[in-house]
Amino acid sequence: MRHLSLILCALYGFMAPFTGFCEDRPVISSATQQCLDCHGTYHPGIVEDWKKSRHAVMTPEKAMAAATLSRKVSSTSIPDAAKSVVVGCAECHTQRPKSHADTFSHNGFDVHVVVSPEDCAVCHSQERDQYGGNIMAHAWKNLAENKIYQDLKQSIIGNPIRKSGKLAFDPPDALTNAETCFYCHGTRLTVTGFEKRDTDAGELEFPIIDGWPNQGVGRINLDGSKGACTACHNRHGFSMETARKPYTCKECHSGPDVPAYKVYEASKHGNIAASKQSSWDFQAVPWTVGRDFTAPTCATCHISLLTNTDGEVVVQRTHQMNDRLSTRIFGLIYAHRQPKNPDTTLIRNSAGLGLPTDFDGTPASQYLIDDTEFNKRQKTLQAVCLACHSLSWVKGHWQRFDHTIQTTNAATRTATDIMRDIWKKGYASGPDRGASPFDESIEKKWSAIWLFDANNSRFASAMAGGGDYGVFAEGRYALSTRVAELNEWLMLKGKKE
Amino acid sequence: MRHLSLILCALYGFMAPFTGFCEDRPVISSATQQCLDCHGTYHPGIVEDWKKSRHAVMTPEKAMAAATLSRKVSSTSIPDAAKSVVVGCAECHTQRPKSHADTFSHNGFDVHVVVSPEDCAVCHSQERDQYGGNIMAHAWKNLAENKIYQDLKQSIIGNPIRKSGKLAFDPPDALTNAETCFYCHGTRLTVTGFEKRDTDAGELEFPIIDGWPNQGVGRINLDGSKGACTACHNRHGFSMETARKPYTCKECHSGPDVPAYKVYEASKHGNIAASKQSSWDFQAVPWTVGRDFTAPTCATCHISLLTNTDGEVVVQRTHQMNDRLSTRIFGLIYAHRQPKNPDTTLIRNSAGLGLPTDFDGTPASQYLIDDTEFNKRQKTLQAVCLACHSLSWVKGHWQRFDHTIQTTNAATRTATDIMRDIWKKGYASGPDRGASPFDESIEKKWSAIWLFDANNSRFASAMAGGGDYGVFAEGRYALSTRVAELNEWLMLKGKKE
Amino acid sequence: MRHLSLILCALYGFMAPFTGFCEDRPVISSATQQCLDCHGTYHPGIVEDWKKSRHAVMTPEKAMAAATLSRKVSSTSIPDAAKSVVVGCAECHTQRPKSHADTFSHNGFDVHVVVSPEDCAVCHSQERDQYGGNIMAHAWKNLAENKIYQDLKQSIIGNPIRKSGKLAFDPPDALTNAETCFYCHGTRLTVTGFEKRDTDAGELEFPIIDGWPNQGVGRINLDGSKGACTACHNRHGFSMETARKPYTCKECHSGPDVPAYKVYEASKHGNIAASKQSSWDFQAVPWTVGRDFTAPTCATCHISLLTNTDGEVVVQRTHQMNDRLSTRIFGLIYAHRQPKNPDTTLIRNSAGLGLPTDFDGTPASQYLIDDTEFNKRQKTLQAVCLACHSLSWVKGHWQRFDHTIQTTNAATRTATDIMRDIWKKGYASGPDRGASPFDESIEKKWSAIWLFDANNSRFASAMAGGGDYGVFAEGRYALSTRVAELNEWLMLKGKKE
Repeated sequence: MRHLSLILCALYGFMAPFTGFCEDRPVISSATQQCLDCHGTYHPGIVEDWKKSRHAVMTPEKAMAAATLSRKVSSTSIPDAAKSVVVGCAECHTQRPKSHADTFSHNGFDVHVVVSPEDCAVCHSQERDQYGGNIMAHAWKNLAENKIYQDLKQSIIGNPIRKSGKLAFDPPDALTNAETCFYCHGTRLTVTGFEKRDTDAGELEFPIIDGWPNQGVGRINLDGSKGACTACHNRHGFSMETARKPYTCKECHSGPDVPAYKVYEASKHGNIAASKQSSWDFQAVPWTVGRDFTAPTCATCHISLLTNTDGEVVVQRTHQMNDRLSTRIFGLIYAHRQPKNPDTTLIRNSAGLGLPTDFDGTPASQYLIDDTEFNKRQKTLQAVCLACHSLSWVKGHWQRFDHTIQTTNAATRTATDIMRDIWKKGYASGPDRGASPFDESIEKKWSAIWLFDANNSRFASAMAGGGDYGVFAEGRYALSTRVAELNEWLMLKGKKE
Repeated sequence: MRHLSLILCALYGFMAPFTGFCEDRPVISSATQQCLDCHGTYHPGIVEDWKKSRHAVMTPEKAMAAATLSRKVSSTSIPDAAKSVVVGCAECHTQRPKSHADTFSHNGFDVHVVVSPEDCAVCHSQERDQYGGNIMAHAWKNLAENKIYQDLKQSIIGNPIRKSGKLAFDPPDALTNAETCFYCHGTRLTVTGFEKRDTDAGELEFPIIDGWPNQGVGRINLDGSKGACTACHNRHGFSMETARKPYTCKECHSGPDVPAYKVYEASKHGNIAASKQSSWDFQAVPWTVGRDFTAPTCATCHISLLTNTDGEVVVQRTHQMNDRLSTRIFGLIYAHRQPKNPDTTLIRNSAGLGLPTDFDGTPASQYLIDDTEFNKRQKTLQAVCLACHSLSWVKGHWQRFDHTIQTTNAATRTATDIMRDIWKKGYASGPDRGASPFDESIEKKWSAIWLFDANNSRFASAMAGGGDYGVFAEGRYALSTRVAELNEWLMLKGKKE
Repeated sequence: MRHLSLILCALYGFMAPFTGFCEDRPVISSATQQCLDCHGTYHPGIVEDWKKSRHAVMTPEKAMAAATLSRKVSSTSIPDAAKSVVVGCAECHTQRPKSHADTFSHNGFDVHVVVSPEDCAVCHSQERDQYGGNIMAHAWKNLAENKIYQDLKQSIIGNPIRKSGKLAFDPPDALTNAETCFYCHGTRLTVTGFEKRDTDAGELEFPIIDGWPNQGVGRINLDGSKGACTACHNRHGFSMETARKPYTCKECHSGPDVPAYKVYEASKHGNIAASKQSSWDFQAVPWTVGRDFTAPTCATCHISLLTNTDGEVVVQRTHQMNDRLSTRIFGLIYAHRQPKNPDTTLIRNSAGLGLPTDFDGTPASQYLIDDTEFNKRQKTLQAVCLACHSLSWVKGHWQRFDHTIQTTNAATRTATDIMRDIWKKGYASGPDRGASPFDESIEKKWSAIWLFDANNSRFASAMAGGGDYGVFAEGRYALSTRVAELNEWLMLKGKKE
């Protein structure tokens, strides 16, 4: 295809707008050119990926000239030096050198390894601002500084050891943390020193960065900022196409704890996308429903700016993804309204625990969004549904989803009541005795009920992937089985007494 | 690619046959045009999807002129009014208005929401007829009116409650039913009333439809007909390409209870399809083996009209998919010959239960196909295999599959004998005490053995996806483990007595 | 696209190099032409697939003329008769007729059914040699002639039976073996006789081959050779594109015992590949990092010849895949260094068992690679990483992986110590009583810990797919749960005594 385009492009100059191969040569800064000269040989993967990117052919100045809905650059003022050259190595890796703890002298340049959202904000300030209000930006702290999550984490990734016959879990070490939970949540980066290395280009000095590599959504960067744009906009192509395809989200949303990708894949939407996406336009901004694509991906519903074929806005773009989310259906014991503040360490339930509900399901309402906000968010998301479905279709769908939130919470309540009886009777050591509610074998059965099964049932409902997947693959069958096993375990213990 | 085609098409008129973009303008009925005028703005997803469809550019008259093997329209007589215009909104949604309970007056038209196979049959009568003989068309009744399935369903999707310490499952409610089992099996639609709504186009009246939305294969429609063509031919593109790709089938055939998609994906056929399908022709009718595709998808083996490169028919198209299926390998305790009648509620085993075998595996033979039919179906399917494989290859494959049906039935028999001992000894309450055989924790272990494990082993065998998937991902490892656990449970109970 | 190319090709002769459709007509041997004449009708799938292949258009002579790095044919001398014609049916299926036990007289030709690596070696001798040193080539014997694996196999795929209340597993029969473990490992083929068949072309005689069909990596062929090139280079297109895509590897590397594909799919690499591969060049030799692809597939890291954009070699091609593997992270109780010899039946641990470690994890070091070889292999693989990542990135990644090998081995040690206590106390019958360590329900829980859970944790670490997948989908959550259950079981037994 590329070869064909080149030929045709040579033949007919007028084809340029369709191929992009005959445009003016991009202006590369001399700093970036120096980077490319060596790294083209050492890191062809990085350099070639970038060369294929929009960053490599487009100056911010040109990008700013686009019509409002087509603009990909949200900043209204960009420094002149950055404006007139394409966005190359130096434009990002030498940005704001004094702010980055990993800045080091490299062939005459003050380079830093880890590019942060603050660097990207030179051109994409609105996205940085929105993302900061997103719960994802706070993912490191929300996990690392919540005692009850730390406890859950230890019982899952801590190494199992036996202490006088009893099983316990060691506190997880930094390396394990970094490749498991914080792989997605983001690590906290720190510079622990600098080292000299013999390289093909002579002796050079580099920073040593603890927690590196990482591209988690809530990474604590070396300039103190939060988040990694590269979690979704992967280096060094920063391809909109990739970010809009569901594979990106899958990296962190595929396990049974947050099965968005799997449910999507099993839904009608996922079916159509798998079958038809090669004919869709994943580059178009704005993204026109029906014309550019005929079924939604994750980005369609949760992030992208959508218009109808008359050019009217269906929904505005947002990088604060909870703008379109009313209920938090995963990760906690009970589904509940979205938190008001993206820093969820502020939340306390009536028992003083860092949970958005009590063990009986009562929500910690003052920390959660109110009716107005709830309805606003639901309506925003439903606007997307309505671009392809009639109102009666959409109402029917949401009625089921609301109902499933209730029934899965009720099922979780049944399971939790059984678990609390187990704790009360001392068959397992729970929070009432100051022990972890997560580390014993029977407690793990209980946690799987809400963390996996109730949760899968809700996702399947939310995304209409409910059929076979939500009943048998994950969700209902597992839920009913585990609750039955949990109760059998309690009854058996009771008999023995 | 689309832009490129347009340009080239303008340049060389002769390219029209290859692109379809330079054909005569399609004739759209004035009724459809009125629909499009508003809904293009309100529902761009629907309208644009349709615009890309064959329905939007082809009149039935032209479609009927195709050579026999290439015809996509099977009806031999089509009313003149429908014949000469493309198949648009009005052609389907105002078809047979008096037959549909959801017909409502809408801007001067008698419109119905739910299009049924009877509407599609105006042009596709043979497909309607065949599909009516398909077990799928009866999927609603086969589940809803079989007591033992209702019982199984309740134990899976019913909400768990505790009654004096014992666990029970509530009968599933309508909303849960609709988004789980009947999502695939189809809901029974009913009009419960009409409501007025304020819309952007003023106040309008719409029907309220219970069970909507739904696209399940056995949906009971508002004209009393059975089935939803849109289960596979998704709205509003009705793309043959999509129906022929395996993602369509995945929606209802992905869980461990009927793992067709997963096994396919892990098979050599699935590997080749994933790697090569972008170069295949999914639009060609007839579908020529080797030329249009080089490995089968689900549709290839089970539905499509196939020819060899000499234009000779390999197999005729069928929408009664069991035409090519001899053994029913899933969903019931034992694999058994396909039922004679697609209405499986007629079946009774020797104990009078609505099951095709006894608990010891003896088939209810009078309800199942005989040798002649069995051999005929097997031969039809093998004709597909033989288009790409030698006879010795095909014989070797089927010998293994036949054998695996026997051995997995034997393993299920072992498990069921253990379960019957458990019931007999009263360690669980089974059908001999009038209780459900499915709702206790140990019964769920037993049902997983045949519903998931034996079944996965058979699918892996049937589709030569047996290697790693059928041993470790699902199937053999799980089967041997669960049978061992089942027996350990019985032995433990025995010891305690 | 194909039609378009044909047209354009007719218009402008100069386009030939880009499409391949206007080249000189390929020279087909008269023997192959005779095959094609009949089999084109009988087996269009085979013939058309071949017609689209490089084999069908390229003579070995031309292939040998390519520049060193671009050569796909490694043999330096090829017989004249084979050299000047394209590689058709006869060139492979009548090669070395006296060496193949399945050679039969077929319309005047001495044809054999099963083409072996020795046949392929006429042109691809280097690949045959390398593959012979690959552990995969020995996969049949490594499984079939290792007692402890046979024992594990019987406990998984053997049919479950009850003997006086106790559960046992029958030794697996040949047909079950062939479609499960040996589907991937390869069957041992034998000719058991010849049979006459009435065919559309009259009565013909064919060999009867036990173990056929099979394309397992360690298949024992009818000329005594080992392996099946078609395991990855699938018939009859032998497409490099297919072999380089991850779907090929998935066939045997998808289950929880060796989850390479699943982890890849959940990794950043897999995300990029899924999103971008349609624009990559899967045909290019050498394969240029960044230009031909922007993220690795399985083949990239483990097999292919890679160059940078300056044409410098990053890694040489190898078909001895363990050339780039230092640690064996799956299939055995503990992760350990790769074996020196691909015939792993030679290995003995200190207890004389055919295992590379003792039950406490101590490696059978004299059978495993030494430091020099270990470091060499690690460095070879890291050269691939370094083509796209900085040294600090690569070091950070490998540090985590090395650490995870240690911690998962430690977790397995905890589990194995519990299991050994269970055996010692006689709660289960283990190897100390001459019984299988794998066939009882509690032993299956133990084996799942290392065979699935520790193993998944390592794969997730190795391929940076660790996030959600390695914690919740498979790996850590399951590991901590199963170890807790194993210990609870032991404690419960202890209490009852």
